[in-house]
Amino acid sequence: MSTELTIKQYIEEKAARIEAELMESLPAIWSIPDTLRESMMYSLMAGGKRLRPTLVLATVEALRGSTEAAMPVACAIEMIHTYSLIHDDLPAMDNDDYRRGKLTNHKIYGDAMAILAGDALLTHAFYSIVQSFRAYEVPAEQIVEIIEDLSKLAGASGMVGGQAADMQGEQGITKLEELEYIHIHKTSDLVVFSLKAGGHLAGATPKQLQALEKYGYHIGLAFQIQDDILDLIGDEKKIGKPVKSDEKQQKVTYPYFVGIEASQEKIRQLTEQGKQAIVNAHFPNPDRLLQLADYLTKRDH
Amino acid sequence: MSTELTIKQYIEEKAARIEAELMESLPAIWSIPDTLRESMMYSLMAGGKRLRPTLVLATVEALRGSTEAAMPVACAIEMIHTYSLIHDDLPAMDNDDYRRGKLTNHKIYGDAMAILAGDALLTHAFYSIVQSFRAYEVPAEQIVEIIEDLSKLAGASGMVGGQAADMQGEQGITKLEELEYIHIHKTSDLVVFSLKAGGHLAGATPKQLQALEKYGYHIGLAFQIQDDILDLIGDEKKIGKPVKSDEKQQKVTYPYFVGIEASQEKIRQLTEQGKQAIVNAHFPNPDRLLQLADYLTKRDH
Repeated sequence: MSTELTIKQYIEEKAARIEAELMESLPAIWSIPDTLRESMMYSLMAGGKRLRPTLVLATVEALRGSTEAAMPVACAIEMIHTYSLIHDDLPAMDNDDYRRGKLTNHKIYGDAMAILAGDALLTHAFYSIVQSFRAYEVPAEQIVEIIEDLSKLAGASGMVGGQAADMQGEQGITKLEELEYIHIHKTSDLVVFSLKAGGHLAGATPKQLQALEKYGYHIGLAFQIQDDILDLIGDEKKIGKPVKSDEKQQKVTYPYFVGIEASQEKIRQLTEQGKQAIVNAHFPNPDRLLQLADYLTKRDH
Repeated sequence: MSTELTIKQYIEEKAARIEAELMESLPAIWSIPDTLRESMMYSLMAGGKRLRPTLVLATVEALRGSTEAAMPVACAIEMIHTYSLIHDDLPAMDNDDYRRGKLTNHKIYGDAMAILAGDALLTHAFYSIVQSFRAYEVPAEQIVEIIEDLSKLAGASGMVGGQAADMQGEQGITKLEELEYIHIHKTSDLVVFSLKAGGHLAGATPKQLQALEKYGYHIGLAFQIQDDILDLIGDEKKIGKPVKSDEKQQKVTYPYFVGIEASQEKIRQLTEQGKQAIVNAHFPNPDRLLQLADYLTKRDH
């Protein structure tokens, strides 16, 4: 169809919808100290491609469900992602001054407020999910499923666990398996959450949920290996932070273990396996999910 | 009845049950980096009276509901309280080395791990709440209500908001209203959550939920004013931290505005009004809630 959006346009269109929702996500009538509200919104609206919420919406579309009812959940995952970036950037953690070409939260609001803004965004993500129940007709049982998934995939055995392993790993990762643990939990877990949440919202079958999980783990890991490669060879301007920043900090990356070529081959395999899982599970409208797999793992930025 | 526990014994008995549950609250089979798990458990099991979870259970008992089904929610509120203490103690925040006579989390595990342990406990609280649905017969609708309350009362317009206002207030609070805002959000909001959650779990009527909310705000504020007084005149050994630590940091407290005697009178009034709300709402078994009001606001430690 000649009027069909390219995948890049599709992502941009979704990102615009998500940003409009995020802008309204902290109720104006709530009594929130001004600086806290500002600090939360500064990072929430600091750009990025909104890939995780886009995956929620693309999954809902793959099942021909309501993207409107899914918006609060899509926003929630972006709040979780944003809080994790704010805390990761702190001096006590990665000590980064810039993110996407803008000053990091603590450089503007100070460490204490950045910690609190992260805590508040994490907490508010759960409020946002509940709004799919309050404002739309998503049944309470689905909401509880989604909240259980998020609490696992973003928590101690999920994203935070990956971050903790990464911190400890800075004292020396010696095996590829250790690096994969970190990549899977730091990155894939939230990708998997996005896909499963979309599945829960749109009534996926157990087989489809399994396929979404497989797609998520494969694409998430491929995305992160690509990130490692970009950090080594990417263009500074395109990725918005100094390249080789990981190498400078002597951080162990995927290419460090297997070389760049084998890393690229691994990405190719993971992407194909992820797509195949979706194809095999017979989604009524899977095209965007399949295109996203390629887009995410072949990006140059 | 001669065999009835004193309120002190009642709290100790509840605390023991809660600690046994907390000990098991991070599933052993979950893959969590060792240091992260240790750091979370260190603070979660670092003592304290477990007053917030005890309020959940006492509210359930006031309505003759199942305390067993309420345990995961009771544990959740202790996870939230614990995470807030870990983050508050960080060098970037209050910079405290000791809490309840033990080294604070970051003094043992470092700032980065303390931030992550706090994030993981906050996230895990929502997992814990969902277990009242999974393991007992609490309906999904009640779980969603409880999660919505927690996400508001612990978030940007609740506890985190109070903490942010407190941080900013260190540059000079000039009005009693500002201090009350901080006290209500830093302390009362979680107390209110505990009571409302107990009410939701045990089928409170709307009138009873209102009474629980009123009780919570009054007792929470009275508790915090008492804390201010204890910090000025309390016995160092009993409260486990150096007395006058707030004054040393030139922190403005309730007695600073109205004097100690008027503060004590305010505590007395708030306590009576809180108890009266419970009496007026006709709970079938309110005695422990009423005793807790007196206990919490007349404590000397």
